[in-house]
Amino acid sequence: MNFLEERIQKDGIVKEGNVLKVDSFLNHQMDIELFKQMGEEWKKRFADANINKILTIEASGIGIACVASDYFKAPVVFAKKSKSINIEGDMYIAEVESFTHKCKNQVIVSKKFLGPDDHVLIIDDFLANGCALQGLISIIAQAGATVEGIGIAIEKGFQSGGRVIRNLGYRLESLAIVDSMDAETGQITFRQ
Amino acid sequence: MNFLEERIQKDGIVKEGNVLKVDSFLNHQMDIELFKQMGEEWKKRFADANINKILTIEASGIGIACVASDYFKAPVVFAKKSKSINIEGDMYIAEVESFTHKCKNQVIVSKKFLGPDDHVLIIDDFLANGCALQGLISIIAQAGATVEGIGIAIEKGFQSGGRVIRNLGYRLESLAIVDSMDAETGQITFRQ
Repeated sequence: MNFLEERIQKDGIVKEGNVLKVDSFLNHQMDIELFKQMGEEWKKRFADANINKILTIEASGIGIACVASDYFKAPVVFAKKSKSINIEGDMYIAEVESFTHKCKNQVIVSKKFLGPDDHVLIIDDFLANGCALQGLISIIAQAGATVEGIGIAIEKGFQSGGRVIRNLGYRLESLAIVDSMDAETGQITFRQ
Repeated sequence: MNFLEERIQKDGIVKEGNVLKVDSFLNHQMDIELFKQMGEEWKKRFADANINKILTIEASGIGIACVASDYFKAPVVFAKKSKSINIEGDMYIAEVESFTHKCKNQVIVSKKFLGPDDHVLIIDDFLANGCALQGLISIIAQAGATVEGIGIAIEKGFQSGGRVIRNLGYRLESLAIVDSMDAETGQITFRQ
């Protein structure tokens, strides 16, 4: 097990309905030393990639992306979630359907901060069905920018998001891939 | 002028209605090197304070707090904004009235991550009327924790939030206090 898998094993809580709670260190309370390790690991895995911008999505991706960005010396842009269609100024907009919340949201990024010269690393905390991630990829395509890679903290390997993204040929590096969880025993099985 | 005031002067855009746009470096695209300078400056100003936790609020406070936290070696907790009353589990809840958006929101923090032993530094990007900040202070009080200080990037000195907080005796360190702005000339006047 790597450092993140160990931490999930130690502090993650499995709940009914394939819910994995990691709010004590990842997405409510945030362990910045852990985030640094994650940044260092992504830098290793994307060592040969030419990355000049990091894109994430509010809210829980922001902290991870900001800490990780120090290893890439690149500014971070976070996409905003919006229910409204009245967006001021020139924005890239992607419609994102959330399976979890059974609703449609817009994901928006100002055109000022993403363009054809950008080589982008996407960073987020979770990948499950991949709806948010698809929205971010769509926005990068609208901008004429390049997706250099995708860094995810925890991928739910039993949901389709990661498979779809890999099938599409994107370079996806998930630091922990959960293949199964058992709410009764608390057991978490990681992909080798 | 300090480093943040200089950056606001250079890249901030004044809009009608006392709006200061700093989305190119602070709250949409984020300059992590600048955030480090801010963290270093807060560490200097709060050098004698005994801080073991940083509290911020989604979304634009998170990046600043996570980068700044490295200077305090403390975990970060971010308060979530919620319109819903159906919150799972044990949460501290504060009602926050937003003057800007003319609505009431809830600000919530899990009881697991804030308690009587915590000495908290609050960090946020903006202070105007101070509604969000009052909610965070209320949550810290509910937890029986101690507010050691408040670090704000940009305070709108012509709105009442900062004055109220200082009158209440809190130690508030705003890195840039804007006393006036002129949308026509673009002029920004900082408090000495």
